[in-house]
Formats: sequence, C-alpha cells, structure tokens
Amino acid sequence: MESYIMKLISVANEPGMISFATGLPDRRLFDVKGIAEAAKDVLNGDPKDALQYGITEGLPALREKIAERCKKELGFNTSIDNIFITNGSQECFDHLGKLFIDPDDEMMIENPGYLGALQSFSVYSPKFLGIDVNENGPNMDQVRSAFGKNPKLYYAVPNHQNPSGISYSDDARKEIAELLKGNECLMIEDDAYGELGFKGRVRKTIRSMNDGIVMTGSYSKIISPGMRVGWMIVPDELVSPVRKSLEASCLHANTFSQAIMNRFLEKNNLSEYLKPIRNEYGRKCRLMLDLLNDNFQDGPSWNEPDGGMFIWFRTPKGTDASKLFEAALKQKVVVMPGKPFHVKGGETTIRLNYATASDEEMKDGMKRLRNAYRGVF
Amino acid sequence: MESYIMKLISVANEPGMISFATGLPDRRLFDVKGIAEAAKDVLNGDPKDALQYGITEGLPALREKIAERCKKELGFNTSIDNIFITNGSQECFDHLGKLFIDPDDEMMIENPGYLGALQSFSVYSPKFLGIDVNENGPNMDQVRSAFGKNPKLYYAVPNHQNPSGISYSDDARKEIAELLKGNECLMIEDDAYGELGFKGRVRKTIRSMNDGIVMTGSYSKIISPGMRVGWMIVPDELVSPVRKSLEASCLHANTFSQAIMNRFLEKNNLSEYLKPIRNEYGRKCRLMLDLLNDNFQDGPSWNEPDGGMFIWFRTPKGTDASKLFEAALKQKVVVMPGKPFHVKGGETTIRLNYATASDEEMKDGMKRLRNAYRGVF
Repeated sequence: MESYIMKLISVANEPGMISFATGLPDRRLFDVKGIAEAAKDVLNGDPKDALQYGITEGLPALREKIAERCKKELGFNTSIDNIFITNGSQECFDHLGKLFIDPDDEMMIENPGYLGALQSFSVYSPKFLGIDVNENGPNMDQVRSAFGKNPKLYYAVPNHQNPSGISYSDDARKEIAELLKGNECLMIEDDAYGELGFKGRVRKTIRSMNDGIVMTGSYSKIISPGMRVGWMIVPDELVSPVRKSLEASCLHANTFSQAIMNRFLEKNNLSEYLKPIRNEYGRKCRLMLDLLNDNFQDGPSWNEPDGGMFIWFRTPKGTDASKLFEAALKQKVVVMPGKPFHVKGGETTIRLNYATASDEEMKDGMKRLRNAYRGVF
Repeated sequence: MESYIMKLISVANEPGMISFATGLPDRRLFDVKGIAEAAKDVLNGDPKDALQYGITEGLPALREKIAERCKKELGFNTSIDNIFITNGSQECFDHLGKLFIDPDDEMMIENPGYLGALQSFSVYSPKFLGIDVNENGPNMDQVRSAFGKNPKLYYAVPNHQNPSGISYSDDARKEIAELLKGNECLMIEDDAYGELGFKGRVRKTIRSMNDGIVMTGSYSKIISPGMRVGWMIVPDELVSPVRKSLEASCLHANTFSQAIMNRFLEKNNLSEYLKPIRNEYGRKCRLMLDLLNDNFQDGPSWNEPDGGMFIWFRTPKGTDASKLFEAALKQKVVVMPGKPFHVKGGETTIRLNYATASDEEMKDGMKRLRNAYRGVF
C-alpha cells in the first residue's frame, strides 16, 4: 500500500492548491492563546517533572480528566489504571497489532476504514475481513459471519467515521456489544471523532455496553494534533502487556505536552470549549453539502454526516473515481481517492474533508471539482 | 525480563529514598528559562504548524541543525533526507527490531548493555550474541567471532555507555568499522551520551568511519527527556522503510516539541550551552569517585568514566550483588543491579548514577551503601 496520507499532505501544500484531501483539522480553530497560557503556566510553575522522564502510563492528572469525561459523556466508568497516554491514538494500533496479530490471523476492519489503522495493522500481516460500511454503520450480516471466523481483532470507528463520516446506529452498536460477549475477538473502538458531533456526542459508545473492549481517543482533532496526545482505555487483563509494550517502544509519551494539555483542560471546561468548534464544523459541513448540491445536479451522490470532518462522495456505478482524482489535480484541487481505504472494492468513492479549506477555498475548489468531473464522466 | 527501569523510577520517588538507580539526568540542569523563552517565541509567532500534523521525517530546520552538528562535531556529513526525528531515540530500536529481526535471528548486543534497548529488541525474539564490555570497550575476539554468525544487527553505545560508563578505544572503533564492511550486519551506534564527555566529545564516531550504519541520538540527556526528541540517521537504502515504519506506528513525532527544541537551538550555541553541563557532570562524577574511595577501602572495584552519568561498581568475585541491592533498599538508598543489563553473567555488578542525587544526598547515600555493604559481604 502506498503511503497516501503523508504524500497528500505534501501535495496539498503546493502553491495554489486547494485541498479537500487530508485528515487535518481546521487550524483556524486551534486555541493558540489558550495553549500559550497553559504552556506559560506549566513553565512558570515547577516544570521539572514536565521536562523529566515520566511514567509509562502517563500523567495521572490527565488520565483522571479522561476518566471523568468517560463517566460524564461516554457512559462508562474506568479506573485511571486502565488508561494509557500515547503519542497520538495512532500509536495504539501498532501496539495492539504487535500484541495480538500473528501473520495470517483474521482481523475485522471496516471497508472503507481508516487508512492509518490499515497501515499500522498491515505491518503484522493479518488477513483482513472487510466489513462494508453503509449509511447505518456496518453490514451486520458480514459482522455476524466474520465473528464466526474467530478473528483476533475488530477495529472500528463508530462515530463520524474516517473516511465516510458515517456513524453507527444504536441497533448496530447494541448487537456488536452482545456478539462480542460470546467471542474471543478484541474490539478496538476508535473514538477519534466522537467529540466532533455537530450537536454533541451521538448515541452510546459500544464500550458503555461492553467493558471488555479497548477504546482509543485523542485530543488531536479537538485541541492540537501536533502535541500528539492520545490514549487507550484497556480491560484489566491488558494493563500489564500494554504497559510493557509501550515501555519497550518509547518509554512513555511526551510529558511536556501532557502537562500543557492537562493545564489547558484545567482552565477550560471541555464541553464549553467544544461548542464553537462543533458549530463551526457543522457550518462548514453544511456549506460543503450546499456546494455539492449546487454543483452536482445528477450523477454523483454523497451522505449527510452528523459530525466529524468528512463527506463520502460516490461517482456513478461502474466509473473509476481515481480518474476524478487525477483530473482534479490538474484543476488544482486535491481530493482523496476512496480506494486505498478499502480492503475490497471502493472504486467509485472519494473522501472530501470540509475542515481544512476556508469558505472561499471551498467555493472555488468545488467549482474546480465540478469542472474536473465534467471532463471525466 | 522484568520492567526494571520504570519500577526503579517509582521506588526512587518514595520519601526519604536516595537514588543512584535511575537513568535520569540532573533536573537541576534543565534550562527552564531558556525552554520557556523558546516556547514563548514559538507560540507568539505563527505556531499553527507546530500545533498541526507534520511530516513523518520531522521538522526540516531541526534536522538541519542535527546535520550541522554531525559535520562539526561527529566527523561526518549527512543529508537531512537521511535524518528522522523520533519520540526519543528509544523509539528507533523498536523500528529497527521490527524491520530487521525475525524470531531466532542472531543479534549482537553489549554485555552489559542498555536495558531499554534489550527490552525493545526482545519483543522481536532475536538470539542475543552478548559481547562483553571491558575497560577499552568490547571484547574484540567476541566481536570477530560474532560477525562470523551472520548477525542481523549490532547494537552498541560506544560513548560513556549505559550502564557501564565505558567508552570504546580508537582501535576498537576502527576495527569494528572495518569488520562491518565485509558483513551484512547493520550496526546501530547509539550516541545518547556522546555529548556528555566531561571534556567534550571523546574520539571519533564509528559512523564517521563507515557510512553504512545507523546512528541514533537524543536531546534527552542534555536538554530535556520529557520533550521526547530523538533521531536516527540512516543509510540511503533505509530511508524508505524507516519512513513507512514511523508513519505506520505514530505518523510523526511531536511537532510542538520539535518546534520548541528548534527555537531553543537557534537561541543557544550548543557547544557553549553544553560546557557547564559537562563540567557539572564531571564534578559530580569526581565527587562520587572520591566518596567511593573514602567508603570502600577494599573489596569492591569501580571504573573512572570520562563522561556520561554512570559508574560501574563490582562486588568481589563470587558474590551476588543483588544482595547489596536488597540491603541498600533497607538503608533507603536504591542502586541498580547490574544483572538485568546482561544476557549472560553480571552477578557481581551494580550501576551507580551520579547525575540525579544532590551532593548532600550523594554523601549520605554513599554512607548508607557502605553500611549495607558491610552487612552483606
């Protein structure tokens, strides 16, 4: 698999290019002043712990804040002993792959699914059981059938999925939580976009219905990805192996970022802080949907997300969306082909990110995309 | 293998405990003011790149500074294309183990060797070929013999080694650089302590005599470990696989720490900045050596390091140094047993860190260690 994520970040930076391609959050929403104040507080206090080596598990005060948020908003209680801070939640997938996957082990993954996770798990050579994602979430017939094959892991993003923007229905969540109880399969519920519901969090987490799963989360999409503060919440029996795996790979996550993030969260009520961010993503999503309606009267189709950063765009049956990607590049607009997110199929799909472009860029870019589309299909 | 490093950090924090056990640098030497100013500059400027996702390779300006330092002080030229910033240099060992080691592959490692690297590589189940370290560095008969077994990797810390404080002689470096030329083995030269020579850098790096090896380095021991900024410099043929491995595991290292570190290095001449740190480590090493001379007239022996953070203490032949570790704990002084650093032998060894304790603690702690010693041997 080619390394698409990083390549697109670099193409997207070319002068004059408008990008709907990356997974980058909107940098205009970074609370630079708030982060600067938090950093100042940490460095004006006694920062030597923040600059010194720390413990593998991560800063206890920050893990307490994550546990409180789980209780208040995610519907479950967890001890901080089950929480590990990581270098972004991306790191979790590498550790879980390393701990659970031997070559040719079966593993359930969404189809389409998050490319970064596919890349992480691929290092350990599993056989991927692709679970198609439709407008209500996973194809449950495929889920039931896959569980019959004794998969080791099931990786899913039930909220505002990357790449499709789709969220799982309540029924799908409930049934998955039940099916897992009779199965050795470990579920990894990636909540990277869970806090980005336009009207707040949507539905219950699967973790709230089954405490035997791993949940991963991150401040990357809501505060700052560059600070690389993510986490995983693991069942008791995984505490010791996960600690050992983290220690062996990098000792611990950045104590300096953790201290600043912790201070930022002391000074900001997270729910209040999130309101304008959720509103803005909702507004930009609406803008892109309106522009899609204006520019594409027939032919392609798309979904209407309730959160996150992405719209899933489909070209007509039998077409090859990568041609649109190529044509769009010539028009100086870059979109993300949907094919690499798939372990099967996906030829007619494109991921559109509405977070990174400004309103003007979005309007311009959508015209360019329409022109590219007309030239191809 | 038990997870000694993190356990000892936690024991060392118990009230009243004096610690010579950890690998922590002296926190009194952290330039808190300088780091605060660098952070302020980054956050008062346009910090959005520092808070956003970055490129897997790491911040180009920081990689340029590393390349300049290599040219000026480490005796070799490198393109920044061969440099990757990592979450501390610890992370490098995990990636190199993942890329090169299949179960039961042979791998050369120092005996004693850095425990964190042993833990990292152990995840990939190599057969360790232990190379005894004596006062001039590695036992060269064992090196020659090990090369005959077609090892995949050779991991070594030629400067002020952790745990022994020993530096390789010029002859050993030259011969290793030559032997590698006729061998498929990839050497990893870990330079974590290379900048901590009391009178400046000692001797030539092996990398300066052979450009086919990987060098790892870090700002952890000289600026701040909590910021987790390390790097590796790799031969051309490893650029692509290392990039892919880093991207799959964590996308990239902390861009925020990288930007602050880069700004710190813009404002501080590294060689000037290092002078008082090198002096202070040299002074504390001398103090511990004097205290050892005062407290232990006969029985144990130790070396006289020319840099780094550690003295290697040996109990008499046939004794078990772990008994001294246990007795010392009761006296409220914690030392690091040498055995876990070994893949064979090491029963009579203890690692003493002279960096973390204050002068008073060192005086007190050495008396406690003497009392513990008298009760055991």
